[in-house]
Amino acid sequence: MVDGTMSSEEMGTIVTLLTDFGTADGYVGAMRGVILSRAPNAQIVDLTHDIAPQDVRAGAWALRQASRTFPAGTIHVGVVDPGVGTERRAIAVEQRGTVFIGPDNGLLSLAVPAGDARVYALDDARWFRQPLSATFHGRDVFAAVAGHIAAGVEVSRCGSRCPTWVRLSWPEPTWSSSTRIAGEVAHIDRFGNLISNIPAEMLGATGSSQPRVALAARELGPLRTTYGEVEAGAWVAYVGSAGLLEIAVRDASAAATGAGLGDSVRVRWDAEDGS
Amino acid sequence: MVDGTMSSEEMGTIVTLLTDFGTADGYVGAMRGVILSRAPNAQIVDLTHDIAPQDVRAGAWALRQASRTFPAGTIHVGVVDPGVGTERRAIAVEQRGTVFIGPDNGLLSLAVPAGDARVYALDDARWFRQPLSATFHGRDVFAAVAGHIAAGVEVSRCGSRCPTWVRLSWPEPTWSSSTRIAGEVAHIDRFGNLISNIPAEMLGATGSSQPRVALAARELGPLRTTYGEVEAGAWVAYVGSAGLLEIAVRDASAAATGAGLGDSVRVRWDAEDGS
Amino acid sequence: MVDGTMSSEEMGTIVTLLTDFGTADGYVGAMRGVILSRAPNAQIVDLTHDIAPQDVRAGAWALRQASRTFPAGTIHVGVVDPGVGTERRAIAVEQRGTVFIGPDNGLLSLAVPAGDARVYALDDARWFRQPLSATFHGRDVFAAVAGHIAAGVEVSRCGSRCPTWVRLSWPEPTWSSSTRIAGEVAHIDRFGNLISNIPAEMLGATGSSQPRVALAARELGPLRTTYGEVEAGAWVAYVGSAGLLEIAVRDASAAATGAGLGDSVRVRWDAEDGS
Repeated sequence: MVDGTMSSEEMGTIVTLLTDFGTADGYVGAMRGVILSRAPNAQIVDLTHDIAPQDVRAGAWALRQASRTFPAGTIHVGVVDPGVGTERRAIAVEQRGTVFIGPDNGLLSLAVPAGDARVYALDDARWFRQPLSATFHGRDVFAAVAGHIAAGVEVSRCGSRCPTWVRLSWPEPTWSSSTRIAGEVAHIDRFGNLISNIPAEMLGATGSSQPRVALAARELGPLRTTYGEVEAGAWVAYVGSAGLLEIAVRDASAAATGAGLGDSVRVRWDAEDGS
Repeated sequence: MVDGTMSSEEMGTIVTLLTDFGTADGYVGAMRGVILSRAPNAQIVDLTHDIAPQDVRAGAWALRQASRTFPAGTIHVGVVDPGVGTERRAIAVEQRGTVFIGPDNGLLSLAVPAGDARVYALDDARWFRQPLSATFHGRDVFAAVAGHIAAGVEVSRCGSRCPTWVRLSWPEPTWSSSTRIAGEVAHIDRFGNLISNIPAEMLGATGSSQPRVALAARELGPLRTTYGEVEAGAWVAYVGSAGLLEIAVRDASAAATGAGLGDSVRVRWDAEDGS
Repeated sequence: MVDGTMSSEEMGTIVTLLTDFGTADGYVGAMRGVILSRAPNAQIVDLTHDIAPQDVRAGAWALRQASRTFPAGTIHVGVVDPGVGTERRAIAVEQRGTVFIGPDNGLLSLAVPAGDARVYALDDARWFRQPLSATFHGRDVFAAVAGHIAAGVEVSRCGSRCPTWVRLSWPEPTWSSSTRIAGEVAHIDRFGNLISNIPAEMLGATGSSQPRVALAARELGPLRTTYGEVEAGAWVAYVGSAGLLEIAVRDASAAATGAGLGDSVRVRWDAEDGS
């Protein structure tokens, strides 16, 4: 450090961790040590370590939701890795200064908007912790590479550019007419609420009138602001904290009615289309 | 930063988090991102995220116990918020440089000694995260405001001063004579120990002789230093880690005997009052 | 701070925490506050708080595994302390710049290689939090001393040198001939895997041929790279993430077969010894 100036690195790159390791065994603690050994000023932040074991899709969803509140320049490390020890690749994905590091099994894919992401296969063992274990890449590959990048190593030096990577499918909602949206259930949370793929921005696009919502064949009534507007046991549709249209049964589980991933969710503005 | 000087802000205001969110869903991770987006050098510290869901009183107790070990200038964010989405206010309470942020439902009240606290209603949406969700004020209101304050915004700019706020009742112990204290059970911990409202300072006030303690009609014998001084299964009274007189059954649960919140706890110095 | 220079202290000594407190009660939060009150720039890192209550040996193992990934200069605080309030000593162990702080009950001992460690009894109440509680030394002794040391106080000023301390037994493996190693089961993890005391370095010592492994009277076949190499339900021996020879039953629990701590583990190179 010269003349008292302080680079942003010295002030501590944020490194987030999301795993399915739980916290009982000290595995996450070991990852933290590996990162701090390489980047002593890294600011390590837990997203969660309680993803259901090996549930890549649940991890991808949680990473998408939690990572979007972080500033550009953050390094997000995700480890839900049923394929550790097999031929699955390790990757780093860089997009507008933010870096995602993890196995190439789709875990990182929902958090990275399509478009301008650069993907690197982490195939350069210089950046791994040695000796490299066959079973704990969270520590020896992902945390080690994250530590080097947090310390200032360019992502592009950590591996070779690769053109394709594993992306989980994310169904895009469509305008089926000028006043109708066709979407589907994209996620079910632990309360049994159904989270659709329809973003709040689409719901505000045709003016201030409240649209009506349907789940498969079931009419749910008008879009609400919060579930407090309906009685206990009633269906309700509202924009949830994910910024997406959600469907719930108040004080109960919508998923328990048999609704599931992929079910049709439709929105329409009656006042404008006359139907 | 000029001339290499570093303000205390740049060195990282401490922001603590206490919620009933658990850690499985990444909700707390999202709060951390919101804070760090506004105050990149904030030092985020978890108090606990395992308060029983919607148990405001348990949260208030834990916040009181954990917050008192932190230095002045800390920002404490508490979110146990069954009223989210209703008309309950969001508040910030400033006292001697320390700030408490959370819903106005009593959660913050046990941690703030009566007297010189200034309370502000967080009614200025400039400081909220946008779009403001109806269901996740922990992220969009409390974490966002905490981030701005950690970054140097004055608390008084974040809302309007309000003269009253919701305070949980805290029974004050009294001197019933010059050698007798009348108090009550104020909290029951997870081990079933009964924690009274009588602080250690009152117990040392009349000299070095050990007083005798009673719970309702039950005589518990002299004040002890630790429960190791009695047999397993015996009642024991001692000053606990909260700095308050506690009553326990060694290796068992005092609460399981039927004792409960509000039960009378009495202390007397026999040697001096002759009874 | 003068002239904008920044000492390593100001940039934040790493302080790790390992306890059996769980996270529900805010006890760990209180420890963090005590540390940050003394060392505002300390970087506090959780190893785990989910050690089984009062299981000193499990805590010692987890501390050994997690602490070894941290850089020199880290302060590790361990609190699994069934003897709190009794005459057991509190100690700090310094070795090559790294400091371990905790009760003198063996908890710290597996993490500290024999040899050049200096052990101090924490018998100087100047460095404790006051008032000192009889039941929460994690906060009032261990966190307080760690905070002072993180702030720059020399370990040697915090207590008096003591020549002996409690060490858990760690069975050393031996070469029973030039091509045979005799070891034993030293730890069982939560999956029921058997972790031996035989380090990877011994396995690589005699060349590239794969040795054969036996557990008590059971022949397990050749050393594998990962358990993916055998069928579900089959025994497998490999070098685990601890850097030690591990024995598992794939997709099942080896411990459930009745194998246990202290069972004999043997390794031999047939190709070289002709047996």
